[in-house]
Amino acid sequence: MKSPQFLSETARVNSAAIAPLPASRKIYVEGSRPDIRVPMREIALSPTQTRSGLAPNAPLTVYDTSGPYTDPAAEIDIRRGLPELRRGWIDQRDDTEWLEGPSSRYGRLRAEDLRLSTLRFQLRRTPRRARMTTEGRGANVTQLHYARQGIITPEMEFIAIRENQRRREASRAHLDPMLGSYQDPMLDHQHPGESFGAELPDEITPEFVRDEVARGRAIIPANINHPESEPMIIGRNFLVKINGNLGNSAVTSSIEEEVDKMTWGIRWGADTIMDLSTGQNIHETREWIIRNSPVPIGTVPIYQALEKVDGVAENLSWEIFRDTLIEQAEQGVDYFTIHAGVRLHHVPMTARRVTGIVSRGGSIMAKWCLYHHKESFLYTHFEDICEIMKAYDVSFSLGDGLRPGSIADANDEAQFAELETLGELTRIAWRHDVQVMIEGPGHVPMQLIKENMEKQLECCDEAPFYTLGPLTTDIAPGYDHITSGIGAAQIGWYGCAMLCYVTPKEHLGLPNKDDVKTGIITYKIAAHAADLAKGHPGAQRRDNALSKARFEFRWEDQFNLGLDPDTARAYHDETLPKDAAKVAHFCSMCGPKFCSMKITQEVRERFGGNADEVIAARDAGMNEQAERFKREGGELYREI
Amino acid sequence: MKSPQFLSETARVNSAAIAPLPASRKIYVEGSRPDIRVPMREIALSPTQTRSGLAPNAPLTVYDTSGPYTDPAAEIDIRRGLPELRRGWIDQRDDTEWLEGPSSRYGRLRAEDLRLSTLRFQLRRTPRRARMTTEGRGANVTQLHYARQGIITPEMEFIAIRENQRRREASRAHLDPMLGSYQDPMLDHQHPGESFGAELPDEITPEFVRDEVARGRAIIPANINHPESEPMIIGRNFLVKINGNLGNSAVTSSIEEEVDKMTWGIRWGADTIMDLSTGQNIHETREWIIRNSPVPIGTVPIYQALEKVDGVAENLSWEIFRDTLIEQAEQGVDYFTIHAGVRLHHVPMTARRVTGIVSRGGSIMAKWCLYHHKESFLYTHFEDICEIMKAYDVSFSLGDGLRPGSIADANDEAQFAELETLGELTRIAWRHDVQVMIEGPGHVPMQLIKENMEKQLECCDEAPFYTLGPLTTDIAPGYDHITSGIGAAQIGWYGCAMLCYVTPKEHLGLPNKDDVKTGIITYKIAAHAADLAKGHPGAQRRDNALSKARFEFRWEDQFNLGLDPDTARAYHDETLPKDAAKVAHFCSMCGPKFCSMKITQEVRERFGGNADEVIAARDAGMNEQAERFKREGGELYREI
Repeated sequence: MKSPQFLSETARVNSAAIAPLPASRKIYVEGSRPDIRVPMREIALSPTQTRSGLAPNAPLTVYDTSGPYTDPAAEIDIRRGLPELRRGWIDQRDDTEWLEGPSSRYGRLRAEDLRLSTLRFQLRRTPRRARMTTEGRGANVTQLHYARQGIITPEMEFIAIRENQRRREASRAHLDPMLGSYQDPMLDHQHPGESFGAELPDEITPEFVRDEVARGRAIIPANINHPESEPMIIGRNFLVKINGNLGNSAVTSSIEEEVDKMTWGIRWGADTIMDLSTGQNIHETREWIIRNSPVPIGTVPIYQALEKVDGVAENLSWEIFRDTLIEQAEQGVDYFTIHAGVRLHHVPMTARRVTGIVSRGGSIMAKWCLYHHKESFLYTHFEDICEIMKAYDVSFSLGDGLRPGSIADANDEAQFAELETLGELTRIAWRHDVQVMIEGPGHVPMQLIKENMEKQLECCDEAPFYTLGPLTTDIAPGYDHITSGIGAAQIGWYGCAMLCYVTPKEHLGLPNKDDVKTGIITYKIAAHAADLAKGHPGAQRRDNALSKARFEFRWEDQFNLGLDPDTARAYHDETLPKDAAKVAHFCSMCGPKFCSMKITQEVRERFGGNADEVIAARDAGMNEQAERFKREGGELYREI
Repeated sequence: MKSPQFLSETARVNSAAIAPLPASRKIYVEGSRPDIRVPMREIALSPTQTRSGLAPNAPLTVYDTSGPYTDPAAEIDIRRGLPELRRGWIDQRDDTEWLEGPSSRYGRLRAEDLRLSTLRFQLRRTPRRARMTTEGRGANVTQLHYARQGIITPEMEFIAIRENQRRREASRAHLDPMLGSYQDPMLDHQHPGESFGAELPDEITPEFVRDEVARGRAIIPANINHPESEPMIIGRNFLVKINGNLGNSAVTSSIEEEVDKMTWGIRWGADTIMDLSTGQNIHETREWIIRNSPVPIGTVPIYQALEKVDGVAENLSWEIFRDTLIEQAEQGVDYFTIHAGVRLHHVPMTARRVTGIVSRGGSIMAKWCLYHHKESFLYTHFEDICEIMKAYDVSFSLGDGLRPGSIADANDEAQFAELETLGELTRIAWRHDVQVMIEGPGHVPMQLIKENMEKQLECCDEAPFYTLGPLTTDIAPGYDHITSGIGAAQIGWYGCAMLCYVTPKEHLGLPNKDDVKTGIITYKIAAHAADLAKGHPGAQRRDNALSKARFEFRWEDQFNLGLDPDTARAYHDETLPKDAAKVAHFCSMCGPKFCSMKITQEVRERFGGNADEVIAARDAGMNEQAERFKREGGELYREI
């Protein structure tokens, strides 16, 4: 450990992660019952200056993944973890039981190890598990199981409210002067999208959420042992989501750093976090992360299983893996990457590749298969795994162990053979009412991206796709957030439900906090560009609001409406640091005499006055004026 | 000026811009005559370790925009400027004459101004111009004019050699053991592209270059007064190019900084540079840049014209603009952005936009048109402009003065009305044998990008498209290199010939050197991703070589083959700084025991030995082995 001073009694959240974002306040939208309170972030805007005075601008509401951290009213103490938001809902379903303690062998060993006491999170409860039925089998507590019975869970209602982002209320604001703030109807303008078969309803209802989950087209990763999580959904008929990876390795990082990366990642928009730790104390690191995470946590259990056999892949066994699944499920991991699609007969398909098998899980299983000359135990025990998943509601993220690690290897036989196996496994998981998403590439040149999405939809019956990148070229180590952001935006547009970020350190080292932020912002851009291109209802509101602010020289609003207000402000201030410049009708690009925006405003004044008048004229005079102008053979209207 | 110490006598190039890139050497490929020497960069690679010893890897040749700066044999003295590479070719055509001095009024004024003597580049020659014909009209010295007469100029031959990047020689290397270095045939593997109508020949011939220029489908920006430039081509049947913008403004920057940005930009791959200065001493700044630039320089002459009338757009006149064109043409500007497509009757089409007119040139002309209630003098004098262009071979970059400045305004009536006018102007320019490219957006969501490319090809008869971004969302100020890199990769794929970079400072401030580099690398990624997706012959070689190096843990090669070796190395060294780690078969992501690449190599050994043996087996044993494996019903081949 790099930080031996980390002690469970003195652990604190990094102060940078808890301040509200600039001009933002946390709001809670209540659902059908008082314990459904959906957090959102409201960005306050300054008024527009018009000739007739100041016209207020209604605040903009945006999706908020940052949890209680950005709520000044919340008391944050990472030693105690976050409040158990979903505890009551899980209790009320009355289909789980409290265990006396961890039921995994490893979980018990760690709990009993006195040397870990200073590192350990002090959890004051025991794990839950689905209650045994009278037939002696475990109950099924998955959201998919409920959905198929027609049950709308509080999680589903929470998600419906969350996905809508108060769009309907915002659209109504401009009709209702009683709301006290003016909502420019222009903000509702949106281009038609091209959705490639996604069906995006104008408003998300709880019933729509239930139906999509029941159909297997969306998942709600929500382990009953992670009651601190705020429900979210992954599916192509919802907002495109992003995942941020973190985790220590044998050479670097500490618990404290990893918790810091998590709070930092969700601040900037990570919808889920994967803890990919492969170093020391990964059980304890994970506990700290889960207890303090308002977003679902994913892991790759084979990584820890391998640590348990000292890194010798051939020594892995189903028993060790099974114990690891139970250990992690009882800690509250929401989804498991499981590379059950790497089958023995797939392995030779990779021998002629430029970069062979680049997935760590894939290569571990390939090695195991070769050594034992046996079918993968993940494949042969897949139904046993399903039994574990449904007892805690852990979702599958079926790993793409044979994803291409280079442009050369994209879309090859090995990759698509595995994808077909993943389709087969999807149907098995669905028979158990276990939620499934499918992982995807990797490195893929642009012209081959669409085939990935199409084959995935076909092989896996529309189970949500969750891809890494894809990186569209191999030639830019140090910039793979960008090589992959290009591919991620495209595959998100084509229908990918969640984009796994890639940081600038990809292929070179473990990401630090700066890299995490760069990766998250890059992927928020990709996901949002995809939402726009799909025509996700309301997606363009934030673009419209920001561009309107930009055009009106509302500098602070331009910064605050952006994905990263701090960086935008810092860049502006590099050349024009004074406060006066924040209200100036020019910037450092052109200087005071020479601004196109300013000139345009002068142009606009000729055509019907300044901003508010133009807006008023839009549906009335302007059309007429423009028509008249055309009738008069292009002679300019020149009343002024 | 921020740097009052800048003096023409002591000016020096920044030392960071002149070192060769790591493991790289400048080579020159000779054409049909000794004065055609095409510079390229050769990256040396270390050998591959095999069980039978070290197998050498042939060096990789890449396109090189950095000019003499990265040649240790070249003597760089920015006070004297670069050697006049094209002087002999221009002389030999014998269709130009030396003027006694600048023929623009402004050029003469500046030359005579004693106060500028310490700032001025000491040019030891006078401008050239097309010689008057016996009919008293100016001759035409454009590359298009020659091409249409069937003349293959040395510039065209230079370009053919340059575009080929010695690909054929490299492919042959593995067949020829006499070359002494081993070329893995895998490096030639490439996925079929989707070219959207681009016709990419397997080898570029000088005749192909001539034909594409004659057809108007490509341009060679090569002012006779910029003989220092290394010929390059912009057209969709060639490698996708990128442009980097620089330039001072009224609030910031100095001559020295701008020259630095130019040398820095070309080091990282800028194919052309636009000098967008709007501040002080822009005539002198431009002279320093052109005299020291091996890449074509573009400008927006209306910016300087506006400075001449103290920023009052309505005081602009054809006479002032004309004098500016001649002034800049005689300095050697290779292409002019001219917003002649902004017509009087277009202006009202922008009044209802969210962000009006965001192009500076567009807004200046809109203001002029409105004030005078007249058609734009750029439009009415377009044929006069053509006369100037052809006397120096300045290419048109027809400006998109009405490009959208926000997602909301994308693909609207104003934008496409202007595009149609640009098509009309293209045909006029072509009648004068003047080279033309067309500028494009702007801000465009992904689903509307393709329409831009298609309409451009249709309206402008396949004249090369040159776009800014497009930015695919408005919500990330501070990251617009990424929002636009996503769009740039796509439009490059669809057929855009040159991508104008956007830096992280877009909308916020002027780029500094770091921003220039970030913008260039981002756009090199976009351009290369586009080349790959189009299926540009040989484009995948560098990806293959880098991925092979990565797979073989040749860390130094991985860094050196990348677009930015310095950053890749620095990122790697953050966690594993020791030299030993550069040859280690692991990295900080997984640590020594847990590496998928390493495991894969073990897998590969089972299937036919290590790298070189697998490659040898590829065309022989492996296929047989795989077939046998399949025949035996998926039972694994297990000789070992």
